[in-house]
Amino acid sequence: MAKYFKNTSSKVGLPPGSIRYVGKTREEPLRICVFEYSEDHLEEYTNITVEEALSYHRQGSFLWINMDGVHHVDAVQQICTHFGIHPLTIEDILSTEQRPKLEDSETYIYMVLKMLEFDPIKGNVTAEQISMILGENFVISFQERPGDTFEQVRNRLRQGKGRIRKSGADYLMYTLIDTIIDYYYVILENFGDKLETIEEDLLVDASSRTLTSLYNLKREMVSVRRSIWPLREVINRLERDELKLIKKETRIFLRDVYDHTIQVIDTVETYRDVLSSMVDLYQSTIGNKMNAVMKVLTIISTIFIPLTFVAGLYGMNFEYMPELNWRYGYFTVLGIMFLMSLMMIYLFKKKKWL
Amino acid sequence: MAKYFKNTSSKVGLPPGSIRYVGKTREEPLRICVFEYSEDHLEEYTNITVEEALSYHRQGSFLWINMDGVHHVDAVQQICTHFGIHPLTIEDILSTEQRPKLEDSETYIYMVLKMLEFDPIKGNVTAEQISMILGENFVISFQERPGDTFEQVRNRLRQGKGRIRKSGADYLMYTLIDTIIDYYYVILENFGDKLETIEEDLLVDASSRTLTSLYNLKREMVSVRRSIWPLREVINRLERDELKLIKKETRIFLRDVYDHTIQVIDTVETYRDVLSSMVDLYQSTIGNKMNAVMKVLTIISTIFIPLTFVAGLYGMNFEYMPELNWRYGYFTVLGIMFLMSLMMIYLFKKKKWL
Amino acid sequence: MAKYFKNTSSKVGLPPGSIRYVGKTREEPLRICVFEYSEDHLEEYTNITVEEALSYHRQGSFLWINMDGVHHVDAVQQICTHFGIHPLTIEDILSTEQRPKLEDSETYIYMVLKMLEFDPIKGNVTAEQISMILGENFVISFQERPGDTFEQVRNRLRQGKGRIRKSGADYLMYTLIDTIIDYYYVILENFGDKLETIEEDLLVDASSRTLTSLYNLKREMVSVRRSIWPLREVINRLERDELKLIKKETRIFLRDVYDHTIQVIDTVETYRDVLSSMVDLYQSTIGNKMNAVMKVLTIISTIFIPLTFVAGLYGMNFEYMPELNWRYGYFTVLGIMFLMSLMMIYLFKKKKWL
Amino acid sequence: MAKYFKNTSSKVGLPPGSIRYVGKTREEPLRICVFEYSEDHLEEYTNITVEEALSYHRQGSFLWINMDGVHHVDAVQQICTHFGIHPLTIEDILSTEQRPKLEDSETYIYMVLKMLEFDPIKGNVTAEQISMILGENFVISFQERPGDTFEQVRNRLRQGKGRIRKSGADYLMYTLIDTIIDYYYVILENFGDKLETIEEDLLVDASSRTLTSLYNLKREMVSVRRSIWPLREVINRLERDELKLIKKETRIFLRDVYDHTIQVIDTVETYRDVLSSMVDLYQSTIGNKMNAVMKVLTIISTIFIPLTFVAGLYGMNFEYMPELNWRYGYFTVLGIMFLMSLMMIYLFKKKKWL
Amino acid sequence: MAKYFKNTSSKVGLPPGSIRYVGKTREEPLRICVFEYSEDHLEEYTNITVEEALSYHRQGSFLWINMDGVHHVDAVQQICTHFGIHPLTIEDILSTEQRPKLEDSETYIYMVLKMLEFDPIKGNVTAEQISMILGENFVISFQERPGDTFEQVRNRLRQGKGRIRKSGADYLMYTLIDTIIDYYYVILENFGDKLETIEEDLLVDASSRTLTSLYNLKREMVSVRRSIWPLREVINRLERDELKLIKKETRIFLRDVYDHTIQVIDTVETYRDVLSSMVDLYQSTIGNKMNAVMKVLTIISTIFIPLTFVAGLYGMNFEYMPELNWRYGYFTVLGIMFLMSLMMIYLFKKKKWL
Repeated sequence: MAKYFKNTSSKVGLPPGSIRYVGKTREEPLRICVFEYSEDHLEEYTNITVEEALSYHRQGSFLWINMDGVHHVDAVQQICTHFGIHPLTIEDILSTEQRPKLEDSETYIYMVLKMLEFDPIKGNVTAEQISMILGENFVISFQERPGDTFEQVRNRLRQGKGRIRKSGADYLMYTLIDTIIDYYYVILENFGDKLETIEEDLLVDASSRTLTSLYNLKREMVSVRRSIWPLREVINRLERDELKLIKKETRIFLRDVYDHTIQVIDTVETYRDVLSSMVDLYQSTIGNKMNAVMKVLTIISTIFIPLTFVAGLYGMNFEYMPELNWRYGYFTVLGIMFLMSLMMIYLFKKKKWL
Repeated sequence: MAKYFKNTSSKVGLPPGSIRYVGKTREEPLRICVFEYSEDHLEEYTNITVEEALSYHRQGSFLWINMDGVHHVDAVQQICTHFGIHPLTIEDILSTEQRPKLEDSETYIYMVLKMLEFDPIKGNVTAEQISMILGENFVISFQERPGDTFEQVRNRLRQGKGRIRKSGADYLMYTLIDTIIDYYYVILENFGDKLETIEEDLLVDASSRTLTSLYNLKREMVSVRRSIWPLREVINRLERDELKLIKKETRIFLRDVYDHTIQVIDTVETYRDVLSSMVDLYQSTIGNKMNAVMKVLTIISTIFIPLTFVAGLYGMNFEYMPELNWRYGYFTVLGIMFLMSLMMIYLFKKKKWL
Repeated sequence: MAKYFKNTSSKVGLPPGSIRYVGKTREEPLRICVFEYSEDHLEEYTNITVEEALSYHRQGSFLWINMDGVHHVDAVQQICTHFGIHPLTIEDILSTEQRPKLEDSETYIYMVLKMLEFDPIKGNVTAEQISMILGENFVISFQERPGDTFEQVRNRLRQGKGRIRKSGADYLMYTLIDTIIDYYYVILENFGDKLETIEEDLLVDASSRTLTSLYNLKREMVSVRRSIWPLREVINRLERDELKLIKKETRIFLRDVYDHTIQVIDTVETYRDVLSSMVDLYQSTIGNKMNAVMKVLTIISTIFIPLTFVAGLYGMNFEYMPELNWRYGYFTVLGIMFLMSLMMIYLFKKKKWL
Repeated sequence: MAKYFKNTSSKVGLPPGSIRYVGKTREEPLRICVFEYSEDHLEEYTNITVEEALSYHRQGSFLWINMDGVHHVDAVQQICTHFGIHPLTIEDILSTEQRPKLEDSETYIYMVLKMLEFDPIKGNVTAEQISMILGENFVISFQERPGDTFEQVRNRLRQGKGRIRKSGADYLMYTLIDTIIDYYYVILENFGDKLETIEEDLLVDASSRTLTSLYNLKREMVSVRRSIWPLREVINRLERDELKLIKKETRIFLRDVYDHTIQVIDTVETYRDVLSSMVDLYQSTIGNKMNAVMKVLTIISTIFIPLTFVAGLYGMNFEYMPELNWRYGYFTVLGIMFLMSLMMIYLFKKKKWL
Repeated sequence: MAKYFKNTSSKVGLPPGSIRYVGKTREEPLRICVFEYSEDHLEEYTNITVEEALSYHRQGSFLWINMDGVHHVDAVQQICTHFGIHPLTIEDILSTEQRPKLEDSETYIYMVLKMLEFDPIKGNVTAEQISMILGENFVISFQERPGDTFEQVRNRLRQGKGRIRKSGADYLMYTLIDTIIDYYYVILENFGDKLETIEEDLLVDASSRTLTSLYNLKREMVSVRRSIWPLREVINRLERDELKLIKKETRIFLRDVYDHTIQVIDTVETYRDVLSSMVDLYQSTIGNKMNAVMKVLTIISTIFIPLTFVAGLYGMNFEYMPELNWRYGYFTVLGIMFLMSLMMIYLFKKKKWL
């Protein structure tokens, strides 16, 4: 299950713009990939040094630097210094526990997103922070670790079909955001499957394992929701604000991303609604089961306790108990017991307990 | 019960404007119907090809193309290309898991609605996505499958009475929206009936079947609500925004539709309120039933357990037990037992358990 | 209890402005009353025909037509046509399941209100829809059935004291609204009484009958709230908007009505709050009762079951059981049983169960 | 406990501005006190007639008329007529069931507040309506009954120190409002004490008496909240609106009162939050207690019922039961019983029930 | 646990601007520290008198006076009078039960914050009120008691590196606010740890001690939330409003603080969400446990009560009971009992109770 809060407190008391990594301890090596492209050419470099990456920043072509491993503080700083990024922004890139946000400086747009990934081994969802910087003719994306949803963007760049190479850095950033948000659908479908499983369990046979699943799903929902809600405002500003770096042609695509974001949020809210109905259902089901158990106990006890008393009565050793000497005493008592049981069963039938 | 989320993830990573159907797998054949009309003439064509349909698009008359089966991707694309629809809009038409929305382009208005239908066999409500495009002199409506609420609109067109043939494409779109929203009343009446059934069950005898009905209704409400809420904004924009394609005369009718939408939403909210009261009632009812069961058990046990003990006492085989030899020992014990029962019953009466 | 939704679906698919009654089936005869008055004269006509009523509409005096029975579709239409009312407004007058609303046309103001009445026989609250049309020098009020809260307005008109005859049609409409809203206080007082009864029950002895009352009150509250909430906006618009037909002198009185509306809504919200506290209280009370029942059972069982076991022990028929032959075996066992009971009672006292 | 709604319905159907007292029936005599003051002189008159009071209204000095007993309708009317108060305002002064509100007429400001008082005998909080009218050089305060929070204002007036005599009628009204709101702190401290008592009860031993206290506190909170919420808007308007009768120097003090109001509201909301947590805690505590009771019952039953069965077994009177004749049959059975008990206890220990 | 409300009522009825300490009774001595600095020099004075402190207020250098112990009313007043602080602001400084707020006077900005500290001995969080006044070239900070989060600011001042000495009084105030808010992360991490502990307890074994922890955490959350929520608006105004005393260069840093505040609030809301899920989980867990207990009781009772009855039957002392004399009567009965048990166990298996 997602931890509640990572070592964010280590930064307390440092001056603003302090260059220190805040987040989960990580061991992954630094990995830098660069795409330098224009409408009619494309160069792709993988696993290069920071210096090499920066050397490809030139007039007349677009540059996309993707860096995995923001805990490599020096590399982050070196890149940012080259592109004239404000120290407070660098501090933000290094803090991996942020909410999605958008900052518009004079010369670049800084954006924080959460890339959600489904971990098929643990069976849960992990969130990774993606920082993106959009400049005049470059996009820089910082990831916490290797592995992302960008592979199809890379393929589209390599093939050079469609708009992607012609439409500038802002369009590239749009496609990156788009793949991140499209992947939320995969996450939500997975949640939907879990919801259906739990629902079936609830309607058929709710065990305490179902309760744990329900609770875990609710908890995952809380953290997914936290990653997604602020996105609404971020994407909306990207589309609405008259940001200098976003071209008018790109805005119509951002509108589309905004619609997707709304739909994702809407689905999350619906799921929350359903989950809270399920909790109600679970509690009522427990009550119903308890009722069923109690009824069995009550029926058995109510039938046999009086009978046992009667049997006990004639098990007493008094010297003078006239019934004991009757010829049909035993059978009379058996008969009475039988009638008592019938009466009880009739009463329970009338109460609809049987 | 409505599934949570259909295969929306298949589109992940595709470039924007990708022409791919997203939604439930469907087998229904393509079905295109065309109404070409002006104030004094009307031509109706059913089951024609796309090419034929497009050939009826001409100056001086209004055209309504209705297409069933948006999973026929090529047909959708062919129609849209003819009318100059933007690729992102085509992508939206093909995605059947969208929220109701309105988009105003320069040359057309694109609108997504949910047509709710009551399935009398399964006894539940299904939602079908209707996309509508309003142009200068045409309306195109895309449905997921045959079967709709438009039959009376067709009849009115055929009869040519009233305003419908005189008032242009925007008025036709209004009537289509109007029938969809009017049909929500049928759905809500059906829900109202179910609510009443459940309410009676709850007040008379709440079984665990009632709980399942309650939960299913709540779940259906969640999904109906999701189809209806965004409509408020959509219809409001249609009425308020100064959309070029909506004539001023049509706006007063849209105001009427808006009032209906508000009333539908209001009813849905009221139902939700009532449903949550019912859940409370159900839980309290379970508690009350348990109390009743427990009281029976407690009364029987509390009366007979001490009596059984007394009987057991005189069933002991001690050699020297003076009472056993008393002449009226047995009857004295019977008397004591009788008095004990009376006392217990009196106590229960005082506690109001009997 | 209020039904959830009446046959509103019968209108589905009809063209807009269709002249058809929507609502509960009614048998009441048509009843038209007219007051024609100016500052110094008054004519009152009851049970007249539509034609007669319309003939009193003349320059220089004010006219109030009150009609009971909106299911008399022809009469409604005849009156409306005379005064130039739009077909969509006529449709609204005939639909008795609407939310309170206000519509301002060029020549008249159309208003829908809910008149709440307490039915002393069934002991519940019924809502009746009142439509009012305010024109230059006339007010028309449409009711669903005879019986209303307007009697004192009629008396004031007859007596001709105060402002009522001098202040024009808008002031007359204000007084009609005012009496409707004043009557809400009667309804709320009645609810307050019921709340107090339930509260006393809850604090003294909560039966399952209390639960039913609680639920019924909650349900009535839901429907009253639904009638009252939209009023806030309606009255506010009447007071704030610069409506041509409302004189400035009348506005200060509407401000007063607005204050009353706010107070009524505020009271309804407070009641809802109290009701939801009561549901919590009820559920906790059930729990407490169950605890009490269980304690009795547990105490009795825990004391007697071990004693019964001991008695059973010495009821065994083994040949060699030395205790059985002891001189004071019986009394020793009785003593041990007595001590066991004392110990149990002491333990229960310590646990505060006794 | 506060009653839900007092006889407000008696006014139904009366013309607007009707001079009739609405509220609890009261017997208190009329009591009028007047302070006539300027910077360097002060006259105080107590228990005078309305005529006398009005005679002190003169140019060049400030006048504060305080009247206890708004059910003395004639006196209220006489005073109001003298100062030119609108009939609707008089109606409002006489209605003691209003929400706090502010009305700005051309020549005076009318304000309704709720003075909360703690009744140490009944141990609850009562609300009294205070109406205040601020004119050019006078303040009139109407109370429901004698006894108020104004004594220290009177002392400050008598001593003539500080700003109070120099700063005009608006400053006097500010001080009156200030003492009323300051007294809310006393009420909230009292609530805080009650909350702490209940909290300790809950964490130590929750009885059903605790439940009643909890519910009563919640109910008192609902009614206090109702008195306080609307105040926010009232005080805010007093501070923000450019009201002619409020001097700029007084506004900074009203800002201070506004902060206090916000703090009071904030505390009330926090208390509500805490109360709802307490209800959850109470319900869980009941559940826990029930569990404890049930465990005792189950442990005792599970240990002794099988033993009793075994004892019963050897109490049977069959002729041929070989064990009965064994030499150590009795002791073997005793041993088996002992082992059974040990095993049960071991199982309970493993389940952590013991 | 945090007390609900401290003796705030002592101020009731005092004139505005009354110089009186409101809050917890405190014994801490007065402690004043002064930093007088400019870009190239720094003087630090600790434990000096008010007069000395004020003597360092001179042109051309910046002054930071930090005072611990606001219950030393005279010292507060003396300092404030020197800097021309309004009496109402002094009153606010002396009231330690305020909400965070910002006031902008012509010559200074007054700000109230809550410094949260984790008390490792009691294991809970305490809030201390910090008042700050920012003037042209000075900052005054008032604390309730010694001990704060400012040590690293002092070190940065002493070392003179970075912006801190060059950037004026507004930047100093920013760093003070920044350390306070950064410390919230420490508090939230501590809460996160507690949440995880409780969560594990809940999923493994929920005792009533878990319930108490859960409740206490909820209560602490309520009070932390109360300290943090109003901050959003305060910091936002500091950043957005065109306050004369805040330089444009400082504003970008305040934007950063604002982001932190939002993140802290967001985390608090998430925790609340999780806590309320936990309460649901706890209640369901109790229900499940009860079910488990009841099942054990029911299984044991249902198996043995009928058997005991059969045993009792043949323990009766009737003279004529044919079965008793059968040769294999005893073994037949034993066999029947065995079969009865098997049947019961089979039934329980089928019901999935075993």
